[in-house]
Amino acid sequence: MTIDAALDGAVDAAAGGALGGALAAAVHGFTFTVRVYYEDTDTGGIVFYANYLKYFERARTEWLRHGGDGVAGVSQQRVADELGLMFVVRSTAVDYKRPARLDDAIRIVSTVERVGRVGIDFHQRAFLGDSDGLLAIGRIRVGCVSREGLKPMPIPDAVRVIFTGR
Amino acid sequence: MTIDAALDGAVDAAAGGALGGALAAAVHGFTFTVRVYYEDTDTGGIVFYANYLKYFERARTEWLRHGGDGVAGVSQQRVADELGLMFVVRSTAVDYKRPARLDDAIRIVSTVERVGRVGIDFHQRAFLGDSDGLLAIGRIRVGCVSREGLKPMPIPDAVRVIFTGR
Amino acid sequence: MTIDAALDGAVDAAAGGALGGALAAAVHGFTFTVRVYYEDTDTGGIVFYANYLKYFERARTEWLRHGGDGVAGVSQQRVADELGLMFVVRSTAVDYKRPARLDDAIRIVSTVERVGRVGIDFHQRAFLGDSDGLLAIGRIRVGCVSREGLKPMPIPDAVRVIFTGR
Amino acid sequence: MTIDAALDGAVDAAAGGALGGALAAAVHGFTFTVRVYYEDTDTGGIVFYANYLKYFERARTEWLRHGGDGVAGVSQQRVADELGLMFVVRSTAVDYKRPARLDDAIRIVSTVERVGRVGIDFHQRAFLGDSDGLLAIGRIRVGCVSREGLKPMPIPDAVRVIFTGR
Repeated sequence: MTIDAALDGAVDAAAGGALGGALAAAVHGFTFTVRVYYEDTDTGGIVFYANYLKYFERARTEWLRHGGDGVAGVSQQRVADELGLMFVVRSTAVDYKRPARLDDAIRIVSTVERVGRVGIDFHQRAFLGDSDGLLAIGRIRVGCVSREGLKPMPIPDAVRVIFTGR
Repeated sequence: MTIDAALDGAVDAAAGGALGGALAAAVHGFTFTVRVYYEDTDTGGIVFYANYLKYFERARTEWLRHGGDGVAGVSQQRVADELGLMFVVRSTAVDYKRPARLDDAIRIVSTVERVGRVGIDFHQRAFLGDSDGLLAIGRIRVGCVSREGLKPMPIPDAVRVIFTGR
Repeated sequence: MTIDAALDGAVDAAAGGALGGALAAAVHGFTFTVRVYYEDTDTGGIVFYANYLKYFERARTEWLRHGGDGVAGVSQQRVADELGLMFVVRSTAVDYKRPARLDDAIRIVSTVERVGRVGIDFHQRAFLGDSDGLLAIGRIRVGCVSREGLKPMPIPDAVRVIFTGR
Repeated sequence: MTIDAALDGAVDAAAGGALGGALAAAVHGFTFTVRVYYEDTDTGGIVFYANYLKYFERARTEWLRHGGDGVAGVSQQRVADELGLMFVVRSTAVDYKRPARLDDAIRIVSTVERVGRVGIDFHQRAFLGDSDGLLAIGRIRVGCVSREGLKPMPIPDAVRVIFTGR
């Protein structure tokens, strides 16, 4: 709960709230918006739930590419080619609150809950457009592995600092 | 834990274990196998994790279509057309244990953990082929809603009995 | 061939070539860039070919949303809600020239080849990033149908003018 | 036209027509049925058109796995691991005739139109269930390439004989 409350602050900050500056510095976050296309919907007339995992992944990828405060971003392809490392998803937990529809914009607000030696826990929320309308909340655990053999490996410092600021 | 142990029994039963008969009768389960095609894989050389949600959904769909002990199955299209009801996924939680690859067969063993008035909690496991190699474990909460308006609605008896036997 | 040459001009124009202004006015075009994420790749290490159909669709959707010269854009959801119309794809033909990879930017350059009463033929090219490297060429025939009954319907003027300028 | 007529015969044969035996021997074909799940549909209430490329691919994969008359099948994973070869799609052309819906069975009837040194042209039709209702027709050109470098390579005899019988 306490962590969650802090994250709520971070989320507001990342989402560009008026008072968000300090919090944004304290708790790292990243906001990325995706559009809902035909490919994303199902016959229920709403976004197919599994696709939120794709949106969350796109947001993490863009965060990594974007970099952090004064820290250069990096692509996963480069991490693979230069360091021989790859990220794999260890677990996902998503609660679906409200449906989104064709042409909606979905704002993904991502923060980091925990960083370990070989993995990172992300907390990611999907909001409808610029509103406070929460569509889905996800907790995604990502692990770092060797490209060959898929063995757990320490997260490179250059990657950790992007997501945590230290 | 106790529930989980019971479910383990159910899983073995559903999977056709030698002593499974009685347990299978006691705890309902359903086994469905999918094949990994190119569309399922990613550049890591393994099945893209979000696709397990699709596999789990296919397995639930086929269970519903197949029906239960002495209970006729039904398609979701018919549930929608005749009862004006639709199933939506409320939450998903998946742990990924080992990767699967192109051409692998993935055996999905599904059981029901809990049945409420407007929702069902499924416990679903993905195994590699006929082996005991666990690939992923999922807990999927499905809700019943009205087709128009997406309002929570009681699960029809004809559906509940398929998944629970009563 | 002649048409193709004209389209080549349009493509350069749409892509922002230095001399493109006049051509861009003569032949309508729209450029939209997508990023390759994990979800897009397959175990061959490249973008799964079927996904180019998704990229082309995203580009057409954004063109419609963006509107044309002095013409307001519109969302497909609004076309459906207000006019009871929907667009369906009648045929697709795609040639794959070179593979794209994780983290690549793919620039989709779209033009219209032919406009009929109930359908539009799009010519869409996928280029690697800002380069001239052609990844795929598609010809996509889209039809307009009634939302209920899926009967062929005339393309609304407000839509036609976006894609053709008249 | 003549070829197409011959293929029509082959299709009937492959689809199990009463008189199909001789034709089936003369023109090779393979029938594979897929089910439409939620993941396959879009907000138009029908199967998302790009997914027919997936169905066609599944059908080709299962044909290869199944093998031909007196010829053992093989998995693509094994072709990659043992021969260092991979199949890539060079071009796709699909005409969409009628929509399919959730829970429909789609029967894919595949034949080979042409076999070259480094590629095969497949002709694939999607029918609704056991009916003659044609949903989509596809022509898919597949090429053989080296796994490393993606260079065009001759189709292995063991693969060609499966698809052509010689």
